[in-house]
Amino acid sequence: MPTREDRFSFGLWTVGWPARDPFGDATRPSLDPVETVHRLAELGAYGVSFHDDDLVPFGSDDDARRKTIERFRQALADTGLVVPMATTNLFTHPVFKDGAFTSNDRAIRRYALRKTMRNLDLAAELGARTYVFWGGREGAETDAGKDVQAALDRYAEALDLLCSYVVDRGYDLRFAVEPKPNEPRGDILLPTVGHALAFVATLDHADMVGLNPEVGHEQMAGLNFTHGLAQALWHGKLFHIDLNGQRGVKYDQDLVFGHGDLLSAFFTVDLLEHGGWCGGPGYDGPRHFDYKPLRTESVDGVWASAAANMRTYLLLKERAAAFRADPEVADALRAAKVAELGRPTLADGETYRDLLADRSAFEDFDVDAAGAYGYGYVRLNQLAVEHLTGAR
Amino acid sequence: MPTREDRFSFGLWTVGWPARDPFGDATRPSLDPVETVHRLAELGAYGVSFHDDDLVPFGSDDDARRKTIERFRQALADTGLVVPMATTNLFTHPVFKDGAFTSNDRAIRRYALRKTMRNLDLAAELGARTYVFWGGREGAETDAGKDVQAALDRYAEALDLLCSYVVDRGYDLRFAVEPKPNEPRGDILLPTVGHALAFVATLDHADMVGLNPEVGHEQMAGLNFTHGLAQALWHGKLFHIDLNGQRGVKYDQDLVFGHGDLLSAFFTVDLLEHGGWCGGPGYDGPRHFDYKPLRTESVDGVWASAAANMRTYLLLKERAAAFRADPEVADALRAAKVAELGRPTLADGETYRDLLADRSAFEDFDVDAAGAYGYGYVRLNQLAVEHLTGAR
Amino acid sequence: MPTREDRFSFGLWTVGWPARDPFGDATRPSLDPVETVHRLAELGAYGVSFHDDDLVPFGSDDDARRKTIERFRQALADTGLVVPMATTNLFTHPVFKDGAFTSNDRAIRRYALRKTMRNLDLAAELGARTYVFWGGREGAETDAGKDVQAALDRYAEALDLLCSYVVDRGYDLRFAVEPKPNEPRGDILLPTVGHALAFVATLDHADMVGLNPEVGHEQMAGLNFTHGLAQALWHGKLFHIDLNGQRGVKYDQDLVFGHGDLLSAFFTVDLLEHGGWCGGPGYDGPRHFDYKPLRTESVDGVWASAAANMRTYLLLKERAAAFRADPEVADALRAAKVAELGRPTLADGETYRDLLADRSAFEDFDVDAAGAYGYGYVRLNQLAVEHLTGAR
Amino acid sequence: MPTREDRFSFGLWTVGWPARDPFGDATRPSLDPVETVHRLAELGAYGVSFHDDDLVPFGSDDDARRKTIERFRQALADTGLVVPMATTNLFTHPVFKDGAFTSNDRAIRRYALRKTMRNLDLAAELGARTYVFWGGREGAETDAGKDVQAALDRYAEALDLLCSYVVDRGYDLRFAVEPKPNEPRGDILLPTVGHALAFVATLDHADMVGLNPEVGHEQMAGLNFTHGLAQALWHGKLFHIDLNGQRGVKYDQDLVFGHGDLLSAFFTVDLLEHGGWCGGPGYDGPRHFDYKPLRTESVDGVWASAAANMRTYLLLKERAAAFRADPEVADALRAAKVAELGRPTLADGETYRDLLADRSAFEDFDVDAAGAYGYGYVRLNQLAVEHLTGAR
Repeated sequence: MPTREDRFSFGLWTVGWPARDPFGDATRPSLDPVETVHRLAELGAYGVSFHDDDLVPFGSDDDARRKTIERFRQALADTGLVVPMATTNLFTHPVFKDGAFTSNDRAIRRYALRKTMRNLDLAAELGARTYVFWGGREGAETDAGKDVQAALDRYAEALDLLCSYVVDRGYDLRFAVEPKPNEPRGDILLPTVGHALAFVATLDHADMVGLNPEVGHEQMAGLNFTHGLAQALWHGKLFHIDLNGQRGVKYDQDLVFGHGDLLSAFFTVDLLEHGGWCGGPGYDGPRHFDYKPLRTESVDGVWASAAANMRTYLLLKERAAAFRADPEVADALRAAKVAELGRPTLADGETYRDLLADRSAFEDFDVDAAGAYGYGYVRLNQLAVEHLTGAR
Repeated sequence: MPTREDRFSFGLWTVGWPARDPFGDATRPSLDPVETVHRLAELGAYGVSFHDDDLVPFGSDDDARRKTIERFRQALADTGLVVPMATTNLFTHPVFKDGAFTSNDRAIRRYALRKTMRNLDLAAELGARTYVFWGGREGAETDAGKDVQAALDRYAEALDLLCSYVVDRGYDLRFAVEPKPNEPRGDILLPTVGHALAFVATLDHADMVGLNPEVGHEQMAGLNFTHGLAQALWHGKLFHIDLNGQRGVKYDQDLVFGHGDLLSAFFTVDLLEHGGWCGGPGYDGPRHFDYKPLRTESVDGVWASAAANMRTYLLLKERAAAFRADPEVADALRAAKVAELGRPTLADGETYRDLLADRSAFEDFDVDAAGAYGYGYVRLNQLAVEHLTGAR
Repeated sequence: MPTREDRFSFGLWTVGWPARDPFGDATRPSLDPVETVHRLAELGAYGVSFHDDDLVPFGSDDDARRKTIERFRQALADTGLVVPMATTNLFTHPVFKDGAFTSNDRAIRRYALRKTMRNLDLAAELGARTYVFWGGREGAETDAGKDVQAALDRYAEALDLLCSYVVDRGYDLRFAVEPKPNEPRGDILLPTVGHALAFVATLDHADMVGLNPEVGHEQMAGLNFTHGLAQALWHGKLFHIDLNGQRGVKYDQDLVFGHGDLLSAFFTVDLLEHGGWCGGPGYDGPRHFDYKPLRTESVDGVWASAAANMRTYLLLKERAAAFRADPEVADALRAAKVAELGRPTLADGETYRDLLADRSAFEDFDVDAAGAYGYGYVRLNQLAVEHLTGAR
Repeated sequence: MPTREDRFSFGLWTVGWPARDPFGDATRPSLDPVETVHRLAELGAYGVSFHDDDLVPFGSDDDARRKTIERFRQALADTGLVVPMATTNLFTHPVFKDGAFTSNDRAIRRYALRKTMRNLDLAAELGARTYVFWGGREGAETDAGKDVQAALDRYAEALDLLCSYVVDRGYDLRFAVEPKPNEPRGDILLPTVGHALAFVATLDHADMVGLNPEVGHEQMAGLNFTHGLAQALWHGKLFHIDLNGQRGVKYDQDLVFGHGDLLSAFFTVDLLEHGGWCGGPGYDGPRHFDYKPLRTESVDGVWASAAANMRTYLLLKERAAAFRADPEVADALRAAKVAELGRPTLADGETYRDLLADRSAFEDFDVDAAGAYGYGYVRLNQLAVEHLTGAR
């Protein structure tokens, strides 16, 4: 049973998804955000996140907006739930069909900036510490007609301006860019963790912009999610995370965490909780679930699925702790020379000249002997499988 | 018929591939690099690239090495072919089975550095201007046993050291990292253009390290190759390129350029030759083919396939030029507001305060009207298809 | 410019798609089917197909239904358009969220049968000759909870019953099952051309059930669409076809035909028009487009995209005819021994005993010489590329 | 610890793989088949399978062949190991580079038949009951040059002839076709379980030809392996199985069973052991592992990996038995109406006329109520995850 200390959070749009898909109508009623806050609190979550339009329907007048926010704030106060993260819906309305910050239409880009600034104010007011940018419509289906270099210019212009805004207003907010390779656009800009890392490094306020990687989005490109997290951590850029499940390279599934590639989920939790084997950092932010309850489920199933995310995370956390503590694992790690990768290749103070002079490094190095060594990765991986399956 | 001015180059390992695959023995004899140089020259190529072991078989003694290099140099002199690029084989010998610069075994990392430095000397001597790093063995099949953060530390350490070496020696060489998502390792470090861009930005000599993207490698992750090139250009990092063909997300096919996704190849050539529609740069380095003649081909077929790469490139170049010059295309670009993306979203000198004060940007903006606009991307793409098929 | 003789047809739901996607609202108004009929006729199409609910909105009363049908029939009469194919919508309403013929809920299965029978009557009345079954909801996201063997029993039961119905009523209709690997379900039953071929062979009225393969659906599984068509033809089961475009293994894109893998589209048209090189059959049914105009397009763009499908088909048809007629292609085919595959491996009347006695087949066979032969497939494929690009 | 009763078997080529891959040389020595037999027996396997050339190197003379077979037979006698399955290597030698039974070269097709007949004799002599056909070279990289319809004719001709041979000789052998989508050819004929099922149904001796599905091969096409098995079982065609692991759509990995998609492996074992929930059959043949020990492993690691396959299978079998026995699972199955799918949609003796007359099936059916039902698949899947992780 999860507690607040586990810092689990959910998007309003996750449990609140009415289960409309490209081939079918909604199968569930919309949920009242206030009810969602109460149910999540009962289930043991500590936080709730939102897009502007999840909370306040698009096109609401100021008065309705104020009242909606007030009710929501009260629900937070009543339950103790926090808002660790917020974001902007820049994808549902037809106006964004060719992008928001990178729409070919300049007026739409300006509108997108204003819509975002407005919600930044609300995010700050509600205490959010991270603001996510998922550019789901920033992309194209055809290679003609979208100048990617110009689009990146505009994307950077937008984030630079919004950073300045946040800084000037004194908001305690960091930005997190969420990559995705495709869907709903044929190809989305910043398609992977890597592309987003490269991009954010060029921004004016690069220090306050990091990433929000999502399990399924990386796996839609056939990439190793845990490797992506590790590289983001290496760059100091794992600002937030979206946990869910995906069964391979196909449409975006947003399954319950652990209901996709379970072995990969185990290693993801292991990395988040413990960091790298050689001392690299783990992650201490919210464990945020960005999933969709299956379209076959009723509202009861929605809450069961929310609980399932947290329960599986805690299970994997327990299994990962046992894996780390197992002496046989330690022995296999030694055999695989895992810790040796943490040691610099050159000795302290050694230069390339010293290396060139070291005959043991090349002229006298026995490549065949070194090539015959067995690292025992299968044994190590099997130990992981056995811990994951509770067999050790 | 290609000429030297087209600057086509081929790896020795491409036409020279003896067509051994994971399930089958070699179907062709090895080629003598000297013969390769002569044949490529006859076909109209201007350059040839190599891994150290392509030219000088692994384990050759110094005398044999010297003689081999001398013969090769003579062939270059006889034909006028240049060596625009060279690289290191850090993947064939069993010693590299767990990686080279990121092997868990520190002695192997040191050996890999030495092997690379030795070939850097030769590359410089032969006049190469780009030195490629494809880390095909830098990766893992299992998530246990390879600390990715530590591996990135070691990768960076290696490139930093090698940059220093090149700088100190006064070599006129730049580095180009070549990403690949998987194969021969289950997951390879720096799996995409994005991950490599992010990584190289952190290096001590970041300015002298760029990328060598390959068509097939990006497409193995389902990514849009032309988009990847555009982002590399945007970062100023398209130092070299590997052209070939791939038929979707599967094993690495290394087909002839254009024999994979032909429409994508058209847009790739268009970008390389003309840059972005809004003025972003194109590419002016060697048009390098990194492909493998099918295993079903005899040596005659090898040379036919080499010629096919160049012929298709030139065809696409011609088609792309006509596409750019077509008034109907210009009209479709206008309708799609393509150039408008080149214009900053904020006016010159405009601040976020001005934007907030601009009621036309938000309060008075007619989202429904803007959302109803038809960009006409299908028309534009159809014009591309018709140019590509020679129908306009 | 297409003519009726080209037999191009479109689904009402294709041009009529209002461009709602999983992340966005509709960007276009609904089209009146009567207007669609007129516009398609003007563009040169000869046929229009429909799901029951495309024509008559779900839940319409009998009177509204009658009137709608009457208007539609009049439009057909006015334009001369025919209805070559019809199908049932068994996926949009929430009742089908766990399947139609294979829903775990028996009452829903019965309802699905009734809904289909009702539309079979209409299809027959409007002169359709093919009735398509796309089981988009027949599948699952999780492996627990859906007994696939039982589901196949129910699927077969449904088709057997519907076949009997058609036979008894004397309708001149054949069935065509349309495979798809996933989306909207995580895994769909009968995911590929192969699975559907195997399934239909087991039916009571196997002769009247064939396939309706779709370009994108096969390519979503990374399969070669032209190969799939060839196998369907080999089984005598290519009853209908859905042409469109897809850019690799990802969500279902439904692009314009030729806007995906263009080289594959060329070979598809070549096969449909000319059959196999060794005399196997081609296809003589409607050239049916099942695509979606991009969400970025207005209604003008919709009609431009409809025209683009037909224009590209005709272009590829012209290119394929030239390819077939080129003497150099004939020479390359000879070199590749293509026709030899049409010749049985055993001589007329030869038995395995004769083969065993033939020392030239084994004991005296020179495997190395035979293995050294160059088939020249690259040359042949390059000739195709050059024909496709109008360069020959 | 496995026992003979578990009926685990391994290919000689699995543990014996010397770990040569497309980019690297062998990292391990070849294993003597006799040693392999002894080691597998010690580890608890009951069977060993082989390609002709695994056992007797290609090109051996008759005398060497006889001696090799004799030593192998003695090892079987000494250990009690059986040979449940054998197969032909029709892919390694260059002669097969364009296919074996479907090579464009008729003489090669004849040679392939003879090579197979020779090994059928040996297979029968050694007591094998299943003979596998993996047509790894039956395919193409380009769509020109391979007439797929003619290729299927030749494939069928080959299997028909070989069936006759087996029948005439009185061998107690069944055939099992093994599908694979690609690699080493760009596209392989009979790419999935479905395509192979459809094909074998057309053969002269269809009853004696079934399938040998492999985990990784189906997953390389993004397909659900357990679904594929279920369809094969439904057709009565699951004659043999190849268990291993694959991490998504990429090159063929041949990982240890369970080291790929573990949740899918759980459901595979559940189906094999228990059959469908509604009473459909499971599988009672050998549990055959077709995997490759990682290239990073020494010979010790090879045997550890062989043991890991069996250990994981037994673990999953235990977990699946507990899942089937759990009353809460039974409750969730009831809620999901799983058993109801086993009940025919029409009542006993009911006709379509009766169904048409049943107003409760359509006119009076409350689609909205039925559409609102929650099946609770997430709960059921979560119970599976918890059983798999040993948490229940």
